[in-house]
Amino acid sequence: MSRIFNFSAGPATLPREVLEQARDEMLEWHGQGASVMEVSHRSKAFGELAEQSEADVRELLGVPDDYAVLFLQGGATQQFAMIPMNLAAAEQPVDYVVTGQWSKKAAGQAKGLRKVNIVADAAGNNYTDIPARADWRLTPGAAYVHYCPNETIGGVEFHEVPDTGTVPLVADMSSNIFSRPLDVSRFGMIYAGAQKNIGPAGLVLAIVRKDLLERAADAVPPILRYAALAEQKSMLNTPPTYSWYIAGLVFQWLKRQGGLARIAEVNQRKAAKLYRAIDDSGCYRNPVAPACRSRMNVPFTLPDAALDPVFLAEAQQAGLAALKGHRSVGGMRASIYNAMPEAGVDALVDFMADFSRRHG
Amino acid sequence: MSRIFNFSAGPATLPREVLEQARDEMLEWHGQGASVMEVSHRSKAFGELAEQSEADVRELLGVPDDYAVLFLQGGATQQFAMIPMNLAAAEQPVDYVVTGQWSKKAAGQAKGLRKVNIVADAAGNNYTDIPARADWRLTPGAAYVHYCPNETIGGVEFHEVPDTGTVPLVADMSSNIFSRPLDVSRFGMIYAGAQKNIGPAGLVLAIVRKDLLERAADAVPPILRYAALAEQKSMLNTPPTYSWYIAGLVFQWLKRQGGLARIAEVNQRKAAKLYRAIDDSGCYRNPVAPACRSRMNVPFTLPDAALDPVFLAEAQQAGLAALKGHRSVGGMRASIYNAMPEAGVDALVDFMADFSRRHG
Repeated sequence: MSRIFNFSAGPATLPREVLEQARDEMLEWHGQGASVMEVSHRSKAFGELAEQSEADVRELLGVPDDYAVLFLQGGATQQFAMIPMNLAAAEQPVDYVVTGQWSKKAAGQAKGLRKVNIVADAAGNNYTDIPARADWRLTPGAAYVHYCPNETIGGVEFHEVPDTGTVPLVADMSSNIFSRPLDVSRFGMIYAGAQKNIGPAGLVLAIVRKDLLERAADAVPPILRYAALAEQKSMLNTPPTYSWYIAGLVFQWLKRQGGLARIAEVNQRKAAKLYRAIDDSGCYRNPVAPACRSRMNVPFTLPDAALDPVFLAEAQQAGLAALKGHRSVGGMRASIYNAMPEAGVDALVDFMADFSRRHG
Repeated sequence: MSRIFNFSAGPATLPREVLEQARDEMLEWHGQGASVMEVSHRSKAFGELAEQSEADVRELLGVPDDYAVLFLQGGATQQFAMIPMNLAAAEQPVDYVVTGQWSKKAAGQAKGLRKVNIVADAAGNNYTDIPARADWRLTPGAAYVHYCPNETIGGVEFHEVPDTGTVPLVADMSSNIFSRPLDVSRFGMIYAGAQKNIGPAGLVLAIVRKDLLERAADAVPPILRYAALAEQKSMLNTPPTYSWYIAGLVFQWLKRQGGLARIAEVNQRKAAKLYRAIDDSGCYRNPVAPACRSRMNVPFTLPDAALDPVFLAEAQQAGLAALKGHRSVGGMRASIYNAMPEAGVDALVDFMADFSRRHG
């Protein structure tokens, strides 16, 4: 078979050019006579790769100099634990905004470590809308406010950065980083698991305001301490070098696409096409309030759940894969990250129209 | 240029067949129409890969049923912190045997978390010998005894498993796992960073006796808790799927080589050739006590350190790379893990003899 359009929520599709380069360099990379996978992270060649990738992240996102850029392990879920360990003193309360399963999980890992306050929770509307900033009950003296700007399961996205005054804002951007331009200076910390918009699973990109690095309690071991990791330029221990390499290729690809302003245009167009196909169909339905619909993850249901397996099987036949929705929501979900070509969305929209005519 | 013989201590050389398969499947894996890197860890296809790789680990090492096999993130260094968090109660002492830089680092990450006792330390002989088991001063009531069976920097290896009675023995086998048959039942826990004998950096294999899984203190967040990770079959969060895939290919390769008994023969022969070339040369010198010389990492010095850059440059020209010794030891180091072909050791031995004739 040949390549399909892969709508997986993560690990997710990657740019074909990136995979082709990785394939071509698999046995011999960069004049080293070895795969990048086999080369020491302390070598000159890998050091250059690491420097270039950090420079590309800084260029793409306009990261100010007073922020550290870290390449970490353990996934975003490990950050859910490291954030309270590092950014809050032992007795300091921490604030969480819950708009879906990921922000809820973030709060879950922090419990037991710090006093967690849920300052807003969209459970009442089944995570189909975002609680207005005016209704958040922030805790005086909180170490930070954590939120998830894009919830992959519910398909809910913040299209503005909420204002938390002088309290550092911490954002799990696993599923929408690099999808549009960003004002990094609005955040205390941004982090993202790689497996949606960056590269392979097992790598985390973290961008931390430097004055926050030193907040960690004494009991935090060095390997879980941002300051120690930053001090060693993300090489306190052997980093996930191959994932880092693929991420670097993705950053170069993003630059070739024209950077984040251009990527954002394409993403907006892709999402608009798909939501229009849903809303105008009289067949499909997306439950999310229009003002906070995600540009990355588009869940939709069919008029009758009994049609779900038929839709999935026919879609697979048409070369459209991994469209099954999360079990907590049901129906379908199309994840249309940066690397999903517009042609993939067009093919999905066409298929949906055809399916609706035949089964709607 | 073409492939060189890569003597890097880690990330280290991988079997050519593994890299060729990875290259050939990079864009389309296993009938999925996508790279394995792009496929959900919850998919049927990846689930089968995960099951097969666990089965292969169990077969290769003869892992008893009362041990969990975990595929984790964060490197062995993160295990240095997770072990005391998981295997010792808050006030329980933990014992460490220090035979080199890695066992010393393991103790270092544990400090601040638990009361660490160094029960033996080979610093007195500059880590060129292993303190006799009879001289270890084990702590009554210790939660475990930790050691590193092979120290990559000093090139010191335990050739017998030390007896610690009923106190669980915990071993950092990052650099010698799968290099010979092993009696897993002698251990409370075995763990290994992948980047030497398993696959790419960013993956850790851990084998934990199941009765130890539940020892973790309440304050340990789920993502750092072995019981929670085992409960979710190493998928509490997205695992490093691509590294896991490569590890699976390496396990299959090990089986094709005839398993660990056969691998051990080859490793023993490779190491014997290299030590003989050093000892008989009248030029090169390995400082380690013969009874505990490593079969994986062979450090050696030249008669005059001023020759080091000449040796390295000429070796590189001869297709023998990454031979520079660790800065703390100086000289050279040849890491000859499973994937280093015997022909690579032969080529190194020939080069050393030639170099010695010309410069010795």
